[in-house]
Amino acid sequence: MLVVMQSHATAPQIDRVVAVITAQGLTPHVLPGATRTAIGMTGNTAAVDPGLFEGLDGVEQAIRVTKPFKLASREMKKDDTRMTIAGVNVGPTTFTVVAGPCSCESEALVMRTAEFLVSKGVKLLRAGAFKPRTSPYAFQGMGLEGLKLLAKVREKTGVGIVTELMDTEYASAVEEAADVIQIGARNMQNFSLLKRVGKCRKPVLLKRGMSATLDEWLMAAEYILAGGNYDVILCERGVRTFADHSRNTLDLSVVPPAKALSHLPVFVDPSHGTGKWAYVPAMSLAALASGADGLLVEAHPEPDKALSDGPQTIDFPTLEKLLAQLRQVAPILGRTV
Amino acid sequence: MLVVMQSHATAPQIDRVVAVITAQGLTPHVLPGATRTAIGMTGNTAAVDPGLFEGLDGVEQAIRVTKPFKLASREMKKDDTRMTIAGVNVGPTTFTVVAGPCSCESEALVMRTAEFLVSKGVKLLRAGAFKPRTSPYAFQGMGLEGLKLLAKVREKTGVGIVTELMDTEYASAVEEAADVIQIGARNMQNFSLLKRVGKCRKPVLLKRGMSATLDEWLMAAEYILAGGNYDVILCERGVRTFADHSRNTLDLSVVPPAKALSHLPVFVDPSHGTGKWAYVPAMSLAALASGADGLLVEAHPEPDKALSDGPQTIDFPTLEKLLAQLRQVAPILGRTV
Amino acid sequence: MLVVMQSHATAPQIDRVVAVITAQGLTPHVLPGATRTAIGMTGNTAAVDPGLFEGLDGVEQAIRVTKPFKLASREMKKDDTRMTIAGVNVGPTTFTVVAGPCSCESEALVMRTAEFLVSKGVKLLRAGAFKPRTSPYAFQGMGLEGLKLLAKVREKTGVGIVTELMDTEYASAVEEAADVIQIGARNMQNFSLLKRVGKCRKPVLLKRGMSATLDEWLMAAEYILAGGNYDVILCERGVRTFADHSRNTLDLSVVPPAKALSHLPVFVDPSHGTGKWAYVPAMSLAALASGADGLLVEAHPEPDKALSDGPQTIDFPTLEKLLAQLRQVAPILGRTV
Amino acid sequence: MLVVMQSHATAPQIDRVVAVITAQGLTPHVLPGATRTAIGMTGNTAAVDPGLFEGLDGVEQAIRVTKPFKLASREMKKDDTRMTIAGVNVGPTTFTVVAGPCSCESEALVMRTAEFLVSKGVKLLRAGAFKPRTSPYAFQGMGLEGLKLLAKVREKTGVGIVTELMDTEYASAVEEAADVIQIGARNMQNFSLLKRVGKCRKPVLLKRGMSATLDEWLMAAEYILAGGNYDVILCERGVRTFADHSRNTLDLSVVPPAKALSHLPVFVDPSHGTGKWAYVPAMSLAALASGADGLLVEAHPEPDKALSDGPQTIDFPTLEKLLAQLRQVAPILGRTV
Repeated sequence: MLVVMQSHATAPQIDRVVAVITAQGLTPHVLPGATRTAIGMTGNTAAVDPGLFEGLDGVEQAIRVTKPFKLASREMKKDDTRMTIAGVNVGPTTFTVVAGPCSCESEALVMRTAEFLVSKGVKLLRAGAFKPRTSPYAFQGMGLEGLKLLAKVREKTGVGIVTELMDTEYASAVEEAADVIQIGARNMQNFSLLKRVGKCRKPVLLKRGMSATLDEWLMAAEYILAGGNYDVILCERGVRTFADHSRNTLDLSVVPPAKALSHLPVFVDPSHGTGKWAYVPAMSLAALASGADGLLVEAHPEPDKALSDGPQTIDFPTLEKLLAQLRQVAPILGRTV
Repeated sequence: MLVVMQSHATAPQIDRVVAVITAQGLTPHVLPGATRTAIGMTGNTAAVDPGLFEGLDGVEQAIRVTKPFKLASREMKKDDTRMTIAGVNVGPTTFTVVAGPCSCESEALVMRTAEFLVSKGVKLLRAGAFKPRTSPYAFQGMGLEGLKLLAKVREKTGVGIVTELMDTEYASAVEEAADVIQIGARNMQNFSLLKRVGKCRKPVLLKRGMSATLDEWLMAAEYILAGGNYDVILCERGVRTFADHSRNTLDLSVVPPAKALSHLPVFVDPSHGTGKWAYVPAMSLAALASGADGLLVEAHPEPDKALSDGPQTIDFPTLEKLLAQLRQVAPILGRTV
Repeated sequence: MLVVMQSHATAPQIDRVVAVITAQGLTPHVLPGATRTAIGMTGNTAAVDPGLFEGLDGVEQAIRVTKPFKLASREMKKDDTRMTIAGVNVGPTTFTVVAGPCSCESEALVMRTAEFLVSKGVKLLRAGAFKPRTSPYAFQGMGLEGLKLLAKVREKTGVGIVTELMDTEYASAVEEAADVIQIGARNMQNFSLLKRVGKCRKPVLLKRGMSATLDEWLMAAEYILAGGNYDVILCERGVRTFADHSRNTLDLSVVPPAKALSHLPVFVDPSHGTGKWAYVPAMSLAALASGADGLLVEAHPEPDKALSDGPQTIDFPTLEKLLAQLRQVAPILGRTV
Repeated sequence: MLVVMQSHATAPQIDRVVAVITAQGLTPHVLPGATRTAIGMTGNTAAVDPGLFEGLDGVEQAIRVTKPFKLASREMKKDDTRMTIAGVNVGPTTFTVVAGPCSCESEALVMRTAEFLVSKGVKLLRAGAFKPRTSPYAFQGMGLEGLKLLAKVREKTGVGIVTELMDTEYASAVEEAADVIQIGARNMQNFSLLKRVGKCRKPVLLKRGMSATLDEWLMAAEYILAGGNYDVILCERGVRTFADHSRNTLDLSVVPPAKALSHLPVFVDPSHGTGKWAYVPAMSLAALASGADGLLVEAHPEPDKALSDGPQTIDFPTLEKLLAQLRQVAPILGRTV
């Protein structure tokens, strides 16, 4: 159920609606919009009676939400979600590029990358301190040391940090170090972790699981939103199919329906999506053309020497050329890079 | 094995190589290039000795082809294949749009569509006279009557015709009526049909099968090329996956590797790929951005009234708007629409 | 619409119903059952009025069929379809084993295999004269010579022949040589071919396409049934998935729903399903346990020397041991091998 | 690297090998076998020199392990892993049935189920206290209360408990309450959780992820084994494919290769695998026939009233009939139920 307030509704009128929701044993979610406020509610096991709200002062309408995801749905929030991350505007009129190495390997590497990015106008750096690895014997990331290093790089260069959280134990540490907390594909349905980042006060980038349907992905986002963290970015990174020409099958066709069903921004990760650096620029441009709001791309000064994901990582000249092309195409689609 | 001739090689020198190949019981394929001629050979079950050719006059080099597909591979033909269809240049510097209704429904419909397309600068019309339908009880197309109708439309408007061939029985009729013979996804491995169109003298548009790997797709093309028809266009139209947000999963990430492994042009069909007209424009732009050479898109003056595929068919204003956007983006990528 | 006759309905009463159906421009299908006759009809584009039939003498009931497949559905025919092939009863109380080499390679091989099978109580031989091959350069089967050879083996050993038809051109030849006409997975939606075998008077074994849903598979069977050939055997042979531990993913879980939705017998091909001979016996037993009505298994006296499919082919001692196990398990499940 | 000791090797000889491994900075894993002891080692980033071990007293051979999974591989441990859980022998000569409701709903339900199971000779009960649910608004299980209830039921009936652990926070609680700790499909690559249960001293049942390859599954098991917990049971529960006739596609064909590559027991969950109770008995029998070592099946006295998974849950009479069939078939395959 969504209670839409009149455009001139007052704060006490809103409070009154909140109180009625709470009195029903439900959780209210106040969703301010450009021209009106709406108040969602979650926690009901049966249909809620619209009559409870329709007579109240300042209430325009009470609407049933038909999707299993509520707070993530366009039904409940019509306007695109916008957020500002380390000074970068994310939303429907921009195309946000996040770039950097797969993992924090050394301070020198991360600093060099951050400086390059900033010099090219890219203000968000991706780099993993905690790495989910298929093998228990593979490099698992620098851990807390990596977070410290990222904090240092942020302080020196002003770059915003996007980094992965793998378990609840390190949630506070990652929340502090990161400007965006990344949840990896393998953890998309790690519900304990989703609940935990719902309590964080940093935006969350939620990668799509390898075999997640669109509904399951939005339900995973709903776990975070329901916890009170409304700044969620969806990120497509390729799904598992029979196809063997790429590491995963990058499903760009999920972008238009994701944006139709949800108000959340949608990013694309063409590095994991293809697994081969040579295809990353073309798929990055295609991501922009498909309507995505941003890009998460692996870049490294010397991809051959990367400790992980080398084959899918582009080098700096390739990134620079890609940025130039993105900046030419974006305005045609009403966006700025 | 590929025998690369020197740039100044003479016709008799080429004939001599052809004769040596034939004497081995193999089939020669003379492949003229911009600066040199190369001669492929097929039919060998074991490795061919390069020494047979390397001593001959005019021979530069004899190269082993490592892929299971030979004539379709970049190893054998480095330059992109170009073709001219009804006056339209298909190749690496153009982006070819083919549009029209799923099926020939009536002369009025097809004529109206063709006139609209021509007025907007689109010179190739798609429309099926023979329709592969899941149900034996569904409309199966107008058949030979449809072909006559298409011929009439071609004569009146000058539009080129792309239409599907479903069985060997009608191969001659379709070859005569069509400027491009389409082979549908369900027939991608109908080897008898592939062999038959290898004997046709019209270009063939070969749709990717619903669960075909890239190698299998190129091997299907190889059946056509091996028959002596070198004008094959590959067309991605979505593959079968678990994803349920679209009718099929449009695999744009196959475009860059297809173009890396093969010299054949690659088109994209976003209508079957998504199954929903609202997502067709975004995915069309993404196809262009991904490096595709053209588009096969379902368009109809009144999609709601189409006898088949209505939900995935765009109307004329949507097509017009899409064309405008494609024409803005294409030059940035070195192409003209 | 299905018109169910009373148990004592007379031939003239049945003829009358057939005449009414024909008068509507529809095609009647008389379906005799153990205790009553039913008459299906196909060809309607809109709902048929039950009132046309319910008043006629001998009519018990007129029932709407809700599935897109009609003649293939349990709604239209409640009893399991049974057929006798070369003296072998196929149906719900038997488990039919069909074995033999992937392809007819030589008379000696096929004769040796047939004699072995007959000596072990297996009365149906599989062997391909026409082979669908991914590569145009691979061995394409012995063709018509292979059919002659199969006819000779049948005459000498009394074994029944299951062999593949790949195109309409050879339909009559295969129909004559075969006791069962096999349609391969790649041709499951080759609708021209399906229509053609609908006119044949030999049972058809229809393999499931590599990415066919159960509904699509039953609709493909419907093409054959609608042509008037009611003896169709469905054959699961593995589907395309991301899994790489087997050549295809043998979907035994399709057996129970296929048998629930349809009255047609369901066989399983564990050789193509797994792609590895070592897993064939276990999956054969699992096929029996899952409720399948028979098995199509590749066997060869010397799998290492087979011209095709060697790695998935079992040798004779393995087949013999498997038969013994099947014969122990089958009676527990109410079947005889 | 695996150091195989001679059959008469002494404890001090084994200790010496352990010391040499430790001195290399690697982790030794002593693996006692029926006739000889072997000592695995993990932690090396490069190949280890066999010469370090081959001269030592009591050493038979030093073998390189070629798979990415080491402790999970048959190369390192030839004999099938056996374990005894609440008095039940799990291994190659038994077929273990674990049954019960999806979730602990009430003491009455769980007690009634446990009593029924024990009366039918089933000694292991499955029931979830913590439930991974797609929706944040769905019933999330009874949590710690559920664990208490399970402990009570175990004490009263003697049944062993299989229950899921979803996050590290409750690891100790679940370890204490459970006889087998279940890791769900969605957490198969929750590496923090895998590391944690590697420290537990109860067997772990590891469900295959929805789109996990066999290698990834075994690598996930490796995380647990590498932590020092050698009692891991693999459990196939269906994978994500395009097929829509069942909730997931139960991949029985993974059983033979899993058992070929690994010594760990493999169970099958036909309830999640099919999603429909009517298909559970057939697929349970097929699981046994495919070579699985056990079954995890959802059963409930009144499936219609279950709080979760009702449609895939069998009732008691169905379970009883299934047990009878399993007990008839198992001896033919050399197992007892």
